[in-house]
Amino acid sequence: MRVLITGGAGFIGSHLAEKRLRSGDEVTVYDNLSLGRRSLLGQWLKHPLMRFIEADLLDLERLKRAATDHDVVYHLAANSGGAGGARATDVDLQQGTIATYSVLEAMRMAGVKKLVFASTNQVYGGAPVRPPSESDGPLVPTSFHGASKIACESLCAAFSHHHGVQAWVYRLGQVIGPHSTHGLAHELADRLLPTPDVLTVPGDGLRRDAYLHVDDCIAGMEFGVGGSTDAFQVFNLAGEGMTTVRFLAERTVEAVESWTGTRASVAYGETDRGGKGDLAPNQLDGSKLRALGWRARSGSDEAVSRAVREIVAEKAIARGLRARG
Amino acid sequence: MRVLITGGAGFIGSHLAEKRLRSGDEVTVYDNLSLGRRSLLGQWLKHPLMRFIEADLLDLERLKRAATDHDVVYHLAANSGGAGGARATDVDLQQGTIATYSVLEAMRMAGVKKLVFASTNQVYGGAPVRPPSESDGPLVPTSFHGASKIACESLCAAFSHHHGVQAWVYRLGQVIGPHSTHGLAHELADRLLPTPDVLTVPGDGLRRDAYLHVDDCIAGMEFGVGGSTDAFQVFNLAGEGMTTVRFLAERTVEAVESWTGTRASVAYGETDRGGKGDLAPNQLDGSKLRALGWRARSGSDEAVSRAVREIVAEKAIARGLRARG
Repeated sequence: MRVLITGGAGFIGSHLAEKRLRSGDEVTVYDNLSLGRRSLLGQWLKHPLMRFIEADLLDLERLKRAATDHDVVYHLAANSGGAGGARATDVDLQQGTIATYSVLEAMRMAGVKKLVFASTNQVYGGAPVRPPSESDGPLVPTSFHGASKIACESLCAAFSHHHGVQAWVYRLGQVIGPHSTHGLAHELADRLLPTPDVLTVPGDGLRRDAYLHVDDCIAGMEFGVGGSTDAFQVFNLAGEGMTTVRFLAERTVEAVESWTGTRASVAYGETDRGGKGDLAPNQLDGSKLRALGWRARSGSDEAVSRAVREIVAEKAIARGLRARG
Repeated sequence: MRVLITGGAGFIGSHLAEKRLRSGDEVTVYDNLSLGRRSLLGQWLKHPLMRFIEADLLDLERLKRAATDHDVVYHLAANSGGAGGARATDVDLQQGTIATYSVLEAMRMAGVKKLVFASTNQVYGGAPVRPPSESDGPLVPTSFHGASKIACESLCAAFSHHHGVQAWVYRLGQVIGPHSTHGLAHELADRLLPTPDVLTVPGDGLRRDAYLHVDDCIAGMEFGVGGSTDAFQVFNLAGEGMTTVRFLAERTVEAVESWTGTRASVAYGETDRGGKGDLAPNQLDGSKLRALGWRARSGSDEAVSRAVREIVAEKAIARGLRARG
C-alpha cells in the first residue's frame, strides 16, 4: 500500500510513518517542517520505502504530484492548536482550513480515494457537562483552532459526497508519547533533566486530564478505518480515566532519577481551579469507536507512565546521558 | 441604530434594508452586485438614511471602514448555494468561508459587537429521518455550500469567544417572497407570464417543501436577536407545514390570470421521487425559536399563496402589465 502522511515529520505523523514502514508499506512524508523535524524520523528517513517531501500544503500543484498513485492520505499536519485567540485570527484559517481544502482538492485531482483526518476535541468547545459524543451539537468552538477543524471536517464531508473520497475523521483528545513537541510531560522533562534537584510544578497538581498514548492513538485510527465502510465517519478518540498533574510529575521524577541518579523533590504552586471539575478537559465519550470493538491498550495513568519514561529517555539520550541501574 | 447589511441588494437583504429604513434606522448596504441588484432596493436607494457601497467582502480594508460606527452587522451575502459540487470546489471556500472571516475580522477591527448571520439548513446534510434540530450532530453536509456555512458558524463562535462579538446564527430553510432571484416560484412565473396558456411543471407536482415567507424570515431573525442574550446562538428558521409543487403551480396560474386574463392549463411530468418521503427537504425543528415565543405569521401554504401573488405582480409590472379585475 502507498501512504501519504501530511505532517509526517511531526508528533503523531512520525510514529505513523515508522509503523507503516515496519508493515512494508511505501510511505511519503509531506511536511513543511514548520513544526515537524526530520530528526523525529531518524533512521527511517533512509528506509528504501520512504520518500520525504519538504513542501507546503498550500502548494496545490506540488501536493497533487506528491499524492498521485497513493492509496490513502493521512492528513495530520496542523499548527497544533492551543494558542486560541492570542495570535492572529487567520493562522488557523490559512494553515488549517485552506490547507485542508488543498489536501482534498489535490486528492480529487490525483484520484486518491481515502482520507484519514486528525481533528480535535476542541470542536466541542465550551465547558461540557458530560464527555461529549460525536452526535452532540451545536458545536460552539472557543478556539480558532477548533473552529478551523470543524471547517475541515465539513470539507471532508462535502468532498466525500461529491467526489467519492472516503473520509475517517478522528476528534483527538490529549495524546502523549515520545516525539511530542509540546505539552506538560515534554516541559517537565525539559526542565528537570538539566537541574534534577527540584521540580517546580504549576498549580497544586490536582488538575486532571485524560491521556491517550500515541501508540493507542494510531491503533485506534487504524482500527476505525478497518472497521467502518461508510463514506464519511467521525470518531472521538481519547484516553480513558483521568490522570493528575501530580501523578505525571512523580513519574517524571522517577524517570529522570533513572538517568541522572538524582531524585528531585517536587514543589507545587497555589491551589488552582483545575482540580475541582468532575470532567477533565480532554475527556470524550468514546463509545462509538468502542462499539466497533476497539479498546485502548493503556488507560490514562498507564499511558502517562509509559510515555513519561519514553519522553525522558528520548531527551536524556539526546543530552548524552546513559541509563543507570 | 446603525445597521450594516452585507448582501443588502439581494433577496432577503433588500427586504431587511427596507424594513430597517422604515423603522428609522440608518442602513449601510454592502454588496458587490454579483447576485444582488440595485433595482431591488428601488426608491429606498434615495432614502436619506441609506448608504450603498458597491464592494467585495474580501476587500477587508474597505469593509472595515464601512463597518466603523455601526451597531450591528447582518451578514446575508452568500452565493446562494444550490449548485453543490457541480462548480469549482473553492467557490464557497472563497465567497463563503473566507468572506465571512473578512466580515468578522472587519468587525473586530472596527469594534462592532453584534452579528446576525444567515446560515442554511444545508449544514445538516444527508437525508434526515426527522426535522433536524440545532442540537443534532455530527453535521455531515453534502454540499460545499453547507460545508462553508458550518465553517462560518464556527468562525462566529470563535470570534464571539475571543473578541466579544455577540452572534446570532440562523439556519434558514426555504424562504419565499418577492425579490427572489431563483427558486421554483420565480421560475414558473418567468415561464408563464410571456406564454400564459400552458404551464409545464417538472415532475408530478407531488414533491413537497416547507416554505417561509421572507417577511416571517426577517421577523424571526429580529425576534431571536431581541429574545436571546447569549454570546452565541444558533436557531433553525423554516416554514411550518408542507406545500406541494402542485399547490404552488396552481397559485401561479391564478396570479398570472389576474394580470393576463388567461388561465393556463398545467401539464405535469412523470412521477418523481419527490412525493414519496415523509419529510420535506427544508423542514426543520423550529422549537428552539418557538420556545422564546416566536411563531411565523403564515404557515407554508399561506406563505406560498402570498409570495406567488407578490412575485407574479413584481414581474408583471416589470413587463408593463396592468392588473385586471
